[in-house]
Amino acid sequence: MKVFGEKAGEKKFRDEWIDFIHELQNKICASLETVDGKGEFKEDLWERKPGGKGGGGKTRVISKGGVFEKGGVNTSVVYGELSRKMREVLHIPLSSESKNWFAAGLSLVIHPYNPFVPTVHCNYRYFELTDSDGNLTDCWFGGGTDLTPYYLFEEDAKHFHGTYKNTCDNFDERFYRLYKKNCDDYFVNTHRNNERRGIGGIFYDHRKPDETHDLNLWYKFSKACGNAFIDAYIPIVEKRKYISFTNEQKYWQEIRRGRYVEFNLVHDRGTLFGLRTNGRTESILMSLPPTVRFEYDYKPAQDSEEAKLLEVCLHPQDWV
Amino acid sequence: MKVFGEKAGEKKFRDEWIDFIHELQNKICASLETVDGKGEFKEDLWERKPGGKGGGGKTRVISKGGVFEKGGVNTSVVYGELSRKMREVLHIPLSSESKNWFAAGLSLVIHPYNPFVPTVHCNYRYFELTDSDGNLTDCWFGGGTDLTPYYLFEEDAKHFHGTYKNTCDNFDERFYRLYKKNCDDYFVNTHRNNERRGIGGIFYDHRKPDETHDLNLWYKFSKACGNAFIDAYIPIVEKRKYISFTNEQKYWQEIRRGRYVEFNLVHDRGTLFGLRTNGRTESILMSLPPTVRFEYDYKPAQDSEEAKLLEVCLHPQDWV
Repeated sequence: MKVFGEKAGEKKFRDEWIDFIHELQNKICASLETVDGKGEFKEDLWERKPGGKGGGGKTRVISKGGVFEKGGVNTSVVYGELSRKMREVLHIPLSSESKNWFAAGLSLVIHPYNPFVPTVHCNYRYFELTDSDGNLTDCWFGGGTDLTPYYLFEEDAKHFHGTYKNTCDNFDERFYRLYKKNCDDYFVNTHRNNERRGIGGIFYDHRKPDETHDLNLWYKFSKACGNAFIDAYIPIVEKRKYISFTNEQKYWQEIRRGRYVEFNLVHDRGTLFGLRTNGRTESILMSLPPTVRFEYDYKPAQDSEEAKLLEVCLHPQDWV
Repeated sequence: MKVFGEKAGEKKFRDEWIDFIHELQNKICASLETVDGKGEFKEDLWERKPGGKGGGGKTRVISKGGVFEKGGVNTSVVYGELSRKMREVLHIPLSSESKNWFAAGLSLVIHPYNPFVPTVHCNYRYFELTDSDGNLTDCWFGGGTDLTPYYLFEEDAKHFHGTYKNTCDNFDERFYRLYKKNCDDYFVNTHRNNERRGIGGIFYDHRKPDETHDLNLWYKFSKACGNAFIDAYIPIVEKRKYISFTNEQKYWQEIRRGRYVEFNLVHDRGTLFGLRTNGRTESILMSLPPTVRFEYDYKPAQDSEEAKLLEVCLHPQDWV
C-alpha cells in the first residue's frame, strides 16, 4: 500500500502515526499517574479477530485512583473490508473503488472524583481507504480535545483554550476559530435545548490535502494537538485536586455526568460508529462516568455556581 | 375524522382510548402509592405547543419514596403534520396519502431502591394516520410490559409471565408465545453479546385489522394488557420490598441499571423517536434510573446469584 509522497525505503506514513499514538499513550498515562499519585493504569491488549486479523488495540484503564475515579487511554489500529454498515456510516457508495479501510487512533476520557476537577476527552485518528489492489484511494485526519467542568473557573477555561489556540496558531491562524466552533457545534445535546456537554476545545474531521495544506501538515498538526493534551489538562488538575467539596457538589457532578452519558450514547458519532460496526464494547464505553444520577426536571438554583456553569454550556463563550 | 366501524352519534374510538389511558394512569398511580407507603406522584401537565396545538400530556413522577427511588407514569395525546423526520422513522413515503398523525398512549417505568424488587416498564399506544381531509388512512395498536430484575426469583418470573399469558389466552392462544418472543427479541443490548435488559414479558407493535382480528379486538386486547399491569407487578413488590440488602447488592443493581441506560439511549425506538421528533425530553427520559454505575469490564463471580441473573438475560427462558 502506498501513501502520498511516500518514497522507497522510507518508513511508511501510517507506521509513523502508529508509533506516535503508542508513544503518546505512554506519555499521557505516565503524567496522569503522576498527578493521580495513587492509581495505576491496567492494560488490556485485544484483537478484533482471532489471530490478530483485523487489528486490535491497547486499552488502558484507571479506576478508583487518588484523583481519577475512572478513565481510559486507549489506542487501536484496526482494518478490514468495507462492510455495508461501514459504507453507510462513512457515506461510501458501493460503486466507489474503495474496498478496504484502515484506522489508527488514540482516544481518552478521564473522570475525576472531585467536582472541581473537570472531565476531559480527546481523540486523534488517521483513516485510510484503499482499492482491491491495496492502492490508497482516500485518507484523512480527525481529532479534538474538549473539557467538561462541573464548576466554572474562568482561568482554567482560558488556559485550556489558550493552549490549543497556541498549538493551532503554529499551523494556520484560521484553525483555532474554525475548530473551536466545530467543537461547540458538535458536543451538543440537541434534545436538551442545545446544551453543550462542557466548555468545548477544538474538533476537526476529514482533514485531507487541499490547496494550501498537504497531508503532512495534517499529520504534524494532529501530532501537535495530541502532544498539547498534557499541557492543556494536567496543570488544571494540579490546581484543583485538593479543593474540598460537599455532597451537594458531588450530586451536581453526577447530574452533569448524566448529560455526558446522554451525549455519548445518543449523539456521539464515534461511539455509535463503534457499537454499530462491531467494535470492542468495553473499550468504547470506557468513556462512561463511574457514578451517575438522573433526576426528573433537575434545575440548579438561580444565580448559583451550578447555574453559572449551565449558562456557559448553553451559550458557548470566547475564552481567548 | 372517521374510524373503522364508527357510527353516527357513537363516541369516537380514539376518545374511548384516551379515556381509558387516563383512567389506567389514575389506577396505576394509586396502587403504586399504596405499595410504596410514603411517596406520592407529582403531576406536570404539558403542551406540545403554546395554546395546546399539537396536544400534550400528563407526566406523573415519584421520587425518593418508601419503595420506589424514581419512576414515572405518563400519558400523552399528541398529533400533528407528518414531518420529514417522522416519515423517516415511521417509513411513510412522501407519496403516501397520509399527511397527519395522532398518537395516544400510556408509558411507565418504575425503579425501586431495593435490588430484590424488579424494575418494570410498560407502554400501550394507539396510532392514527389521516389524509389532508382528515379521513383515516391507517391506524394500529402497540404495546408491552417487561420486567428487569436484579436478582432472579423464579416464582416471580412465573407469576409475571403467567399473568400476561392468561391475558393473552383470553384473546388468542397464539399471542403469548408470539409476543413473548417479540419482547425477548426487542429489549436486547446487541453491543453486549445480545444480553437482554431483563427477563422480558410481552411486546407487540403495528397491530392492525387482519382476517381474524378486527381493530376492536386489538383495542380490547390493549386495554386488557394495560389493566393486567397491576396484577402482574404489585404482588412481586409486596413480596420483596422488605428483604434487607447489602451495599454489594445495591452496587450490582446500579451496574445493571447502566445496561438499562445503554438499551434506552442506544436501541429503544420509542426513546429515539421521541428525542428525534422534538418530544418532551423530561417526560421521555423519566425512564432513566436514579443512580447508575459504569465500570470497565465488570463481571459477576462465577456461580453467584448475580451470574445466575445474567445467564437468563443472555438466554431467555420459557417461564410458563
